[in-house]
Amino acid sequence: MTKLAVIGSGLMGSALARAFAAAGHDVAVWNRTHSKARAVGGGTVAFENLVEAVSGRELVVVSVSNYAASSELFSSQAVASVLAGKTVVQLTSGSPADARGGLEWARAHGVDYLDAAILAYPAFVATDYATVFYAGSRAVYDRHLETLRAIAKNSVYVDEKIGSAATLDCAILEAYYGGSLAVLHAAAMCQAEGLDPKAFFAQKNSFLGLISVTADAAQGMIENNDFTGQQCSLNTHVAAIEHIVRLSTDARISSRFPRELLENYRRALGAGLGEQELPAVFRTLKQD
Amino acid sequence: MTKLAVIGSGLMGSALARAFAAAGHDVAVWNRTHSKARAVGGGTVAFENLVEAVSGRELVVVSVSNYAASSELFSSQAVASVLAGKTVVQLTSGSPADARGGLEWARAHGVDYLDAAILAYPAFVATDYATVFYAGSRAVYDRHLETLRAIAKNSVYVDEKIGSAATLDCAILEAYYGGSLAVLHAAAMCQAEGLDPKAFFAQKNSFLGLISVTADAAQGMIENNDFTGQQCSLNTHVAAIEHIVRLSTDARISSRFPRELLENYRRALGAGLGEQELPAVFRTLKQD
Repeated sequence: MTKLAVIGSGLMGSALARAFAAAGHDVAVWNRTHSKARAVGGGTVAFENLVEAVSGRELVVVSVSNYAASSELFSSQAVASVLAGKTVVQLTSGSPADARGGLEWARAHGVDYLDAAILAYPAFVATDYATVFYAGSRAVYDRHLETLRAIAKNSVYVDEKIGSAATLDCAILEAYYGGSLAVLHAAAMCQAEGLDPKAFFAQKNSFLGLISVTADAAQGMIENNDFTGQQCSLNTHVAAIEHIVRLSTDARISSRFPRELLENYRRALGAGLGEQELPAVFRTLKQD
Repeated sequence: MTKLAVIGSGLMGSALARAFAAAGHDVAVWNRTHSKARAVGGGTVAFENLVEAVSGRELVVVSVSNYAASSELFSSQAVASVLAGKTVVQLTSGSPADARGGLEWARAHGVDYLDAAILAYPAFVATDYATVFYAGSRAVYDRHLETLRAIAKNSVYVDEKIGSAATLDCAILEAYYGGSLAVLHAAAMCQAEGLDPKAFFAQKNSFLGLISVTADAAQGMIENNDFTGQQCSLNTHVAAIEHIVRLSTDARISSRFPRELLENYRRALGAGLGEQELPAVFRTLKQD
């Protein structure tokens, strides 16, 4: 049994606290709005005072709305003092720069620090469908792994580099947000052309399969820094994207997303990559 | 055995012609550059003159670089005359408006017309991995289906609306190009942050799974025109996209794609959809 505290009782913080308690740990919860901490339940104990909530806890898990909110809580010298020698696991979403700021604070106060990112909706916490990425000291991670497994069956240690969990999280989410926006705009094109979006969704395996094959090809090409091939040139792909822009414009729906796709792929032609394969676009994304 | 002609001997046209010939059909091929037609081989017969190539052929399959090139070929009155009463299958990539133009021409000249789109690289023609979408008269499609199956195991009749095959093709390709660009930019973020892109590609199933789940949810929500739910609000997603933009800016790689994602998702917040689920963005994509 670990004595731990969960800071933040939003949908995610509450789910995390209940998962730890369900695994048999002694869980203190704290929220700026005390009634939310009291509402967590599941055998957790709500504290009104942050210093009291974290006192005597070897592990403090933070899940608040953003790093600014987190930084404000930890700016208190009293809080920092009771955390010295303990471990803070930062589960608030942020960028790698946020994670580096967190580590700086932790080092200045003698606190062990892991930056983490959870890939799950609150309802999936503690299930097979939740993944948590961790960055920071491997020794600190190993020390707490058994306890941390309570919130996700799939715990992934990414790297010592403190920003690596946030980086991996941002990367996966961008693939998700980009892919989803493309899917939604594609459905809007169908509807605007009088084709039931069902006909498009029925082809889900086609486009997911194409993305998957391209991701595999891209991985190899990035590793070898060689984007030549015989499948289909970027020049040909750009011609296809022009049809997508034309359809959107003709159908008078928003064309800003396909136009942006076109500009990105065209930029690769401008860089002389027109005869290479689609993943060659990677080269132009690495520079501003 | 069908007597047919394939117009265009690029990588795709050549693959189509050889697939028809391998299935036992009598295949004439024609290309603006005659040496390319002669190079097709596989039992096909190259013609130097377009009118001769299509004369006496019940089916003419067109696969040229774009609709402008195709229109130019069919602007010849001599070509139109020999095609009267025959069927043209347009496999050149285009937009729904291009398909409508093709049908107009065909009607004016007494030609049966199917607009088609092939979802395959040339190397996959005639295999299980090739899909061809067809739009136009169901009766014309049914008449030629047995012959057309030679180029793709998966023949899909989409709709009588002549633009429907191009629409479905554009939709699938947009999902593909959008998803692939997001994946490539995500890999660039990892590399810029000193994280081996391998770590990201190893999570391929995570982001493909998330897109898949969202596509399923979106299909239902679009059908019911109701985008409310309890998973995660657009407001929360937008905060995550802000981290992605910040990472890109901090790492000095191109931030134009994630900024465009942010603008699209933010536009939905501006439309008052912030408390709804991610697929609510669909609503703002339907309008210019």
